[in-house]
Amino acid sequence: MDLLHQLTLGDVLAEVAAGLPHRLAAVDGDVRLTYAETDTRVNRLAGSLAAAGVGVGDRVVWLGQNSHRLVEVLFACARLGAVCCPANWRQSAAELAFVLDDAGPRVVIWQEAEIGERVADARAACGGDALWVRHDTDGEGGYESFLGAGDPREPTTAVDAAWPVLQMYTAAFGGTPNGAQLPHLAVIAQDLVMAKVQDVDHTSVYLNCGPLFHVAALMTTLATLHFGGTNVYTPRVDAAELCRLIDTERCTHAFLMPPTMDQMVAANADGRYDLSSLRSIPYTEAWNAMVTVDTSPWATSPGGYGQTELMGLASCNALGGDAIGAHGRGSPVVRIRIVDPDGADVPRGETGEMVVRGLTAMVGYLDRAGVNAAKQHDGWHHTGDLGRREEDGSLTFIGPMARMIKSAAENIYPAEVEACLRRHPAVADCCVIGVPDPKWRQRVKAVVVLRDGDAGDGVDAAAIIEHCRSEMASYKKPREVVFVESLPRTQAGVVDRDAVDAAHGGGGYPGRSGTAN
Amino acid sequence: MDLLHQLTLGDVLAEVAAGLPHRLAAVDGDVRLTYAETDTRVNRLAGSLAAAGVGVGDRVVWLGQNSHRLVEVLFACARLGAVCCPANWRQSAAELAFVLDDAGPRVVIWQEAEIGERVADARAACGGDALWVRHDTDGEGGYESFLGAGDPREPTTAVDAAWPVLQMYTAAFGGTPNGAQLPHLAVIAQDLVMAKVQDVDHTSVYLNCGPLFHVAALMTTLATLHFGGTNVYTPRVDAAELCRLIDTERCTHAFLMPPTMDQMVAANADGRYDLSSLRSIPYTEAWNAMVTVDTSPWATSPGGYGQTELMGLASCNALGGDAIGAHGRGSPVVRIRIVDPDGADVPRGETGEMVVRGLTAMVGYLDRAGVNAAKQHDGWHHTGDLGRREEDGSLTFIGPMARMIKSAAENIYPAEVEACLRRHPAVADCCVIGVPDPKWRQRVKAVVVLRDGDAGDGVDAAAIIEHCRSEMASYKKPREVVFVESLPRTQAGVVDRDAVDAAHGGGGYPGRSGTAN
Repeated sequence: MDLLHQLTLGDVLAEVAAGLPHRLAAVDGDVRLTYAETDTRVNRLAGSLAAAGVGVGDRVVWLGQNSHRLVEVLFACARLGAVCCPANWRQSAAELAFVLDDAGPRVVIWQEAEIGERVADARAACGGDALWVRHDTDGEGGYESFLGAGDPREPTTAVDAAWPVLQMYTAAFGGTPNGAQLPHLAVIAQDLVMAKVQDVDHTSVYLNCGPLFHVAALMTTLATLHFGGTNVYTPRVDAAELCRLIDTERCTHAFLMPPTMDQMVAANADGRYDLSSLRSIPYTEAWNAMVTVDTSPWATSPGGYGQTELMGLASCNALGGDAIGAHGRGSPVVRIRIVDPDGADVPRGETGEMVVRGLTAMVGYLDRAGVNAAKQHDGWHHTGDLGRREEDGSLTFIGPMARMIKSAAENIYPAEVEACLRRHPAVADCCVIGVPDPKWRQRVKAVVVLRDGDAGDGVDAAAIIEHCRSEMASYKKPREVVFVESLPRTQAGVVDRDAVDAAHGGGGYPGRSGTAN
Repeated sequence: MDLLHQLTLGDVLAEVAAGLPHRLAAVDGDVRLTYAETDTRVNRLAGSLAAAGVGVGDRVVWLGQNSHRLVEVLFACARLGAVCCPANWRQSAAELAFVLDDAGPRVVIWQEAEIGERVADARAACGGDALWVRHDTDGEGGYESFLGAGDPREPTTAVDAAWPVLQMYTAAFGGTPNGAQLPHLAVIAQDLVMAKVQDVDHTSVYLNCGPLFHVAALMTTLATLHFGGTNVYTPRVDAAELCRLIDTERCTHAFLMPPTMDQMVAANADGRYDLSSLRSIPYTEAWNAMVTVDTSPWATSPGGYGQTELMGLASCNALGGDAIGAHGRGSPVVRIRIVDPDGADVPRGETGEMVVRGLTAMVGYLDRAGVNAAKQHDGWHHTGDLGRREEDGSLTFIGPMARMIKSAAENIYPAEVEACLRRHPAVADCCVIGVPDPKWRQRVKAVVVLRDGDAGDGVDAAAIIEHCRSEMASYKKPREVVFVESLPRTQAGVVDRDAVDAAHGGGGYPGRSGTAN
């Protein structure tokens, strides 16, 4: 292994701890840890994990809410060449058991508070012989005593930055999720991009209130650590507590959604909390009066296009300035192409699949050889998402490409037709399928749920079809529309397209293997 | 090759050209090129270079002043897996011939204006059967007709981002320079760091007035390209022309040294040029009145520690805030340790060799197996430079470690003793050597050139030794001081330590191989 040119997450923490040893790394309840302390704790934890049998490629599952300990587990895994898998603690016991069985961890770090019952049910339901370590106890066998028993010296394991270090479950198109394995270099590259666009540095204080099992929240945590800022952890979204933490810790960044921001405005109606340290996207007048409204490109136009398989954002609205497209320009650590089903570039302005290559691409889903071969081939990660490169070079993400309908020589993407249908005021929900056609191979059929009340009154198939014809190329419009009360959904909550096909005569989709894709 | 996780410089340009096709990439005299145009030109050039026999690992030497064509050559090489070597055009014909013989290029892109005579002499003196293409002519066989003949499509060569793409000559400690080979990923990683610390984005306009054969100037060029900014090229430093370009092109960044800034103040004494677009480090009152004084951490405290072998800066003063050390904190893409000759960490506050691992490390000097084995081993790049990690984690670069003197169990670094000697007001120049000693193995001897005039009057060996004793650990002070008129220097202008040793009885240095290092 070419260690000299590697940079692992273990190296990243080591350099931050060497460079800013006394800087505050983590605030979590009563816990306050410097980078030097964090570095030593991570070494100890790695030592204890190694003693529990965790080695290169092994998984450690985090089954708890936000905590500085989750980040310690990630970096301890990094130093052992192992993989940290933060599970979505909001899942049902059955879903948690699925993840546990799928990940097959050597060690599970779990939490009793709030989720202990579901965790116990999941533990009972799954197989495996993992060591279970409870993180929210000071007692015997708990996280702190487990960590305390470890060697404080840095492990000597040689680790390749191309190996996975983080595994996140996503892409439940088939009804159950897949564990996207992200390499060290993907995390590091995304840290650099996020530090640039979100203006993260050693003075940043990031309030970790978004769920850290979600890459969108975790991206900023890791960038903050990489640049020597402070991460403040809170287990869940509680508006008053978020206000208190911002006030007390002078948080500069936070992962907040509009409903939470509204709650925070209410919780701080009497102005008892000083939120002026928070640099925020502009929002309501009441909100703006409480925080420091950020006018950077990121704040004015946050986000972009991304997926967990790409360690989050692959394009950013903050990059490249004014844009026709809704999702900005490609991130500086990837290359993005829009291709047809044969992998050839489609012209600007036309829709195709977004394919990506570069530093942030996952190394595949764990144990999904078939899906991986379909998604990652010929040097490109096939996102399974539809997008368009606009005339000015900016990108628009259109929607997931669950299926493609082939009508004569034309490719028709259900997600695109569905997005058009949803813009009709009478349409509450819909699913577009391809129906075998003797002449055109397939024809487009829309299965539509109408809104209750006035909006749906008097709307018929002809009106729906005319709406589509007026908004998109004619060959894409449905030839048939049927109205239903509701659409079948999978356990994961997405429309069950197989069931819609079965009920409404769909089928005959083109695909790389010649079967439905 | 794992193409999916690669990001080459070819990919970087392709993505910028796809995302910002109409943005101005280059201004060079009358030439104005967008990113789309640049991308196509690079493809054409790559096609012509390939037709001339340039393939994976081959070198193309640039032998001219600053030009957008140098950057085109770099990216064309990138797309072929080849290596671009921008030679220092200020060198003598003999020095240029050395570089040409050493690099062994397939193609040399050369310039007639200003340097034609030296280039011709070098060409006559060197061997090789390279194709020579003159860049500053519109005629037959010139760069533009050579480029124009190439295929505009992107080459299909599979390129690994770990391969070298840039070769820069440096480290002439032995009298002749070595070609440091920098991989794609080193350039890309440094782009991201520079974009962050120098605040480079798509609105940046960088005036390329520093020499592009120097990594410190080229770093910002490439970051500007990577983020879709505009590079403005000028072949040499001419104060009035720099003012005119800043005014006309609204340059935001420039590579300027204080003497040039003084000349620009003089050239713009009548205020005919509007330099307000330039974000500059604070300097003299007259300068500050002309430009926009930048108050960012980079402007207040620019630079850091770096070397060509590390693609420029490996630590930045702009990172991490207040610092005891003079050279800031480690860059986010490397890990830095300070080690003793056995490779063990020395405690904070103690001097040792700076060793580095990470994304920006070179892949070795071309054809220098022995030096490479000595510099790059056990997973670390040995900088050959002395440094110190201060109590607050910040770094201080002390000086190059040309030789180390071993006195009993103690390591004594001549560079450190010399730095101390130079702080004595009477010392104009000096060289510290190790003299064999029957009892202590070696003892320290200082060979000193005194200043003319009063400063040197009455200074004797005892005074010099006492000065050192008062400033450093006693074992480091010279036991002997001799005064000389001048010190011998190599062709490259550095003190010839072998000659000083020979004249003054030096020798017996410890080294990894047991011989002098």
